[in-house]
Amino acid sequence: MQGVWFTELQNSGLGISCRTKAVLHQEKTKFQNLLMLDTEVFGRMLVLDGAIQTSIKDEFVYHEMISLVALNTHPDPRRVLVVGGGDGGAIREIVKHPQVERATLVEIDQGVIDTARRYLPEISHALDHPKVEVLVEDGIKHIQERESYYDIILVDSTDPVGPAVGLFAADFYRQIHKALTGEGIFVAQTESPWFNQELIRQVYRSVSDIFPIAKLYLANIPTYPSGLWSFTMGSKQHDPEKVDITRIPETDTRYYTPQLHLAAFNLPKFVKELLQG
Amino acid sequence: MQGVWFTELQNSGLGISCRTKAVLHQEKTKFQNLLMLDTEVFGRMLVLDGAIQTSIKDEFVYHEMISLVALNTHPDPRRVLVVGGGDGGAIREIVKHPQVERATLVEIDQGVIDTARRYLPEISHALDHPKVEVLVEDGIKHIQERESYYDIILVDSTDPVGPAVGLFAADFYRQIHKALTGEGIFVAQTESPWFNQELIRQVYRSVSDIFPIAKLYLANIPTYPSGLWSFTMGSKQHDPEKVDITRIPETDTRYYTPQLHLAAFNLPKFVKELLQG
Repeated sequence: MQGVWFTELQNSGLGISCRTKAVLHQEKTKFQNLLMLDTEVFGRMLVLDGAIQTSIKDEFVYHEMISLVALNTHPDPRRVLVVGGGDGGAIREIVKHPQVERATLVEIDQGVIDTARRYLPEISHALDHPKVEVLVEDGIKHIQERESYYDIILVDSTDPVGPAVGLFAADFYRQIHKALTGEGIFVAQTESPWFNQELIRQVYRSVSDIFPIAKLYLANIPTYPSGLWSFTMGSKQHDPEKVDITRIPETDTRYYTPQLHLAAFNLPKFVKELLQG
Repeated sequence: MQGVWFTELQNSGLGISCRTKAVLHQEKTKFQNLLMLDTEVFGRMLVLDGAIQTSIKDEFVYHEMISLVALNTHPDPRRVLVVGGGDGGAIREIVKHPQVERATLVEIDQGVIDTARRYLPEISHALDHPKVEVLVEDGIKHIQERESYYDIILVDSTDPVGPAVGLFAADFYRQIHKALTGEGIFVAQTESPWFNQELIRQVYRSVSDIFPIAKLYLANIPTYPSGLWSFTMGSKQHDPEKVDITRIPETDTRYYTPQLHLAAFNLPKFVKELLQG
């Protein structure tokens, strides 16, 4: 293992190591330790508090899957909010949707936005799109102050430690429900079905209590623990599995397809059982 | 990172590291370096020539998905062959199927069988099942000597280096075609769509040239590079996507479900494009 390697301890007994070509930037922001690497296998990579957030090679999976499933389930998504996601990847997918009028990013850490703008232009470029509003503030507070306002809210958070803990709480989901319009849809990233089963179960229960439709769907993200990542959706009216996929607009995706929109809800048996347990 | 860690270099720039509780067995067999570890996160784990083959925690995904898709596509699978797979995991899934009369394992390395019997009984126990025949010999030779004999052939090989190189060659697939009955189905493990694109494309082309139906499907395997693994199927008559899933027998799976049987063929766009390219 010659050269300089970055290792993330994904949990106490599992590590992923990436050979680096350069450490591009290192910073202690107001909220977290930020690291921008250039890696051999995944290209440029953003690391927060030691955990890989996104990389040039595989970012499209996460950003398409957190955004497009909700966007293509809602019949008329005009106002879309992203909480977290300061890299701008979800925003990039949202502004491609023809019906979206306003995409709002609420990121608590200016350092993430600045670093993404500088080192990850392929991901962050849409932050300058005319439909986009970037607010550096607390997402929880932002949502508390809105009522029946957003059509879609995406919670693109870091892991449930440090600044993101409050983004996995039932009270936060109740506030989201209130901030959504009558046809509103909410999606949160909810970690790995292999390593975060208690969290997934707990979030799923909370969302099921608050929204008439609660669903979990999955995608493969190589740089995240286990390579399998879950997203939990709460929806007031529209069932993502009842979408007429022949009406989904063609876009330049690299992971998402209309067929995969449905297939992503067909869970492995152990994940299905996890939700029933 | 206190303690003893096992690291697999999945490629020149990417490593996966598992904290170990014990090194249970280490051996240089006639064909490869064999290591049996007890790891904190994945439990007991078989490593061949430095590459993780199977672990107690996630083995069910690979073994169900390499076996059950073909078994539930074929209307009457009586004779099933596994080439490689000396741990016995695919055999375990095959003998559960009520129509199977004979499950034959052809493994070239006696050391793998012996070690799996000793340290991985949960995986290997079906090797003693009355329907099972275990042959320690060259799978290529075994197949060359059969004609219109097997209903299903599964190629459960190691990576395409060392002893397994010949198992990824077009000539081998032609021999498999000959060894299969008129309704025969063949499945091979074919590596990661993120890191082995040229191999996947090449195998898919070969199989498409030889079999009227060629399909790729995917499963999430945390201990394999990228967490996303591909299987290539060649079929003489039966299309795995046209199976009436309401007729699939209920079994005690942990990953496979009838719905997932179909969903696994809904490929991410970059994988679809890889096959078309």
